[in-house]
Amino acid sequence: MDSNFTIGIIGGAGKMGTLFKNLFQKKGYPVVISDKNQGLSYEELLKKAKVIILSLPMEVFSEVVSLIAPLVKEEHWVMDICSLKLEPSRIMRKYLKKGEILATHPLFGPFERDLRGKTVALFPLRAKNFFPWLRSIFLEEGLKVVKISPKKHDEIMGIVQVLNHFWLLILGKILHDSKLSLKEIIDLSTPSFLNQLKILKRLAMQDPQLYAYIQLENPFGAKFRKLLCRHCQKLASALSPRDPLSYEVFKENFRIARSVAQELEAFLSSDID
Amino acid sequence: MDSNFTIGIIGGAGKMGTLFKNLFQKKGYPVVISDKNQGLSYEELLKKAKVIILSLPMEVFSEVVSLIAPLVKEEHWVMDICSLKLEPSRIMRKYLKKGEILATHPLFGPFERDLRGKTVALFPLRAKNFFPWLRSIFLEEGLKVVKISPKKHDEIMGIVQVLNHFWLLILGKILHDSKLSLKEIIDLSTPSFLNQLKILKRLAMQDPQLYAYIQLENPFGAKFRKLLCRHCQKLASALSPRDPLSYEVFKENFRIARSVAQELEAFLSSDID
Repeated sequence: MDSNFTIGIIGGAGKMGTLFKNLFQKKGYPVVISDKNQGLSYEELLKKAKVIILSLPMEVFSEVVSLIAPLVKEEHWVMDICSLKLEPSRIMRKYLKKGEILATHPLFGPFERDLRGKTVALFPLRAKNFFPWLRSIFLEEGLKVVKISPKKHDEIMGIVQVLNHFWLLILGKILHDSKLSLKEIIDLSTPSFLNQLKILKRLAMQDPQLYAYIQLENPFGAKFRKLLCRHCQKLASALSPRDPLSYEVFKENFRIARSVAQELEAFLSSDID
Repeated sequence: MDSNFTIGIIGGAGKMGTLFKNLFQKKGYPVVISDKNQGLSYEELLKKAKVIILSLPMEVFSEVVSLIAPLVKEEHWVMDICSLKLEPSRIMRKYLKKGEILATHPLFGPFERDLRGKTVALFPLRAKNFFPWLRSIFLEEGLKVVKISPKKHDEIMGIVQVLNHFWLLILGKILHDSKLSLKEIIDLSTPSFLNQLKILKRLAMQDPQLYAYIQLENPFGAKFRKLLCRHCQKLASALSPRDPLSYEVFKENFRIARSVAQELEAFLSSDID
């Protein structure tokens, strides 16, 4: 470890900022922070720190990057931790003409007790030295590091987050509007549906503003929402009781699900509660 | 235990039939079966057995019930194990004018190694003596017994099974059609989405014919499929990037999900992998 590697966290008093502060301090790096009404000014922070972590809500991301841009020198390493990657990468590339820049998305929340086995997506926008350094730190912490382009990242998140959260919100709405009691529904739940309910419960614990951003600003979000609507209409209109053709349509869709499941088999342990 | 209580299983060579055969034999009851080209004839079976378990695919249910109807005497106890309850109950009520009749839905598959903690839905259609007897046997086996009317059962299953399976089939189709590799998707999966994939994998292991029946013949199925389509269209058309109103719509839906989650809290342990 190079003790010149002071870490500066902009937004360092926030939840994710604090998580990264603790992580780097634990590893022996000096950490300085800047935040609303506390910590250092951007000038002071960039004078002291080599590594700059932008731990900011998306609403102010562009503004802060433009503000620090004149202060960023060749020796600086700058990274973001936004949940989407295309737009923040574009902003960092646009404003930061000096130093190294790197895009990250930690796929975990600020309250994780143990980062081992959790995933972080990384992409070196211009990070010849920064990338291997950061990757080894994350690997030392037991994190799974996935190198992926900002575009592919956002597209995959269009399914993993946008589509998944979208369905869960609608499921919540249908449960909420139904006259059925949740107690009775849980009493009759299959293991499969119990897991849907647990996923819904997990979603509802998250930060609404962040999840609105993840849902609304993903450039592939509208595509997957529309795809769900279209398949929904198409499949719903093809299914009727006591209709042999409907049974064929259902079974064809079941075969497709099974082919996906077989492919999943190779990558996914089957433990489920 | 009354040793006169011989158990007769129609469809006793099938998977669920075998599960019930093993269960009752383990408890010391003599079990006889009738099945295609094996076991006893209906006449012989109904002469020997007091308890008649109809373990039949829905396609032949009505026909078999009408065939055994003239053989069912006052002392017989007849139960079905169909995954839906309104229609099989109607059929049993229509044809079986003598004896006691009881509707059940075991909410588990034929390959469960341990029935403890699994659920079985019961409804005594006309089962003053049969109901308490069967319930205590199930309770002794560690099963959770839920007494519920056929109508409410089918309505709840419209969410627990129809809506859930319908979504999972569409998710499978979207994953199948996407150009993204499943490996990359799994690499970037959140704990929430990993669970969706596991649920999908579990679904695809089931019997397509049974799951087509569950999807297509539930009298509330079309209602919940349409509800999903409608909410999907409505919410999708209300969400656009960088639109303050869209953020409000998302957050309102998030609040609803959170209110459901808070209600769930009372009934549901939060363990999830």
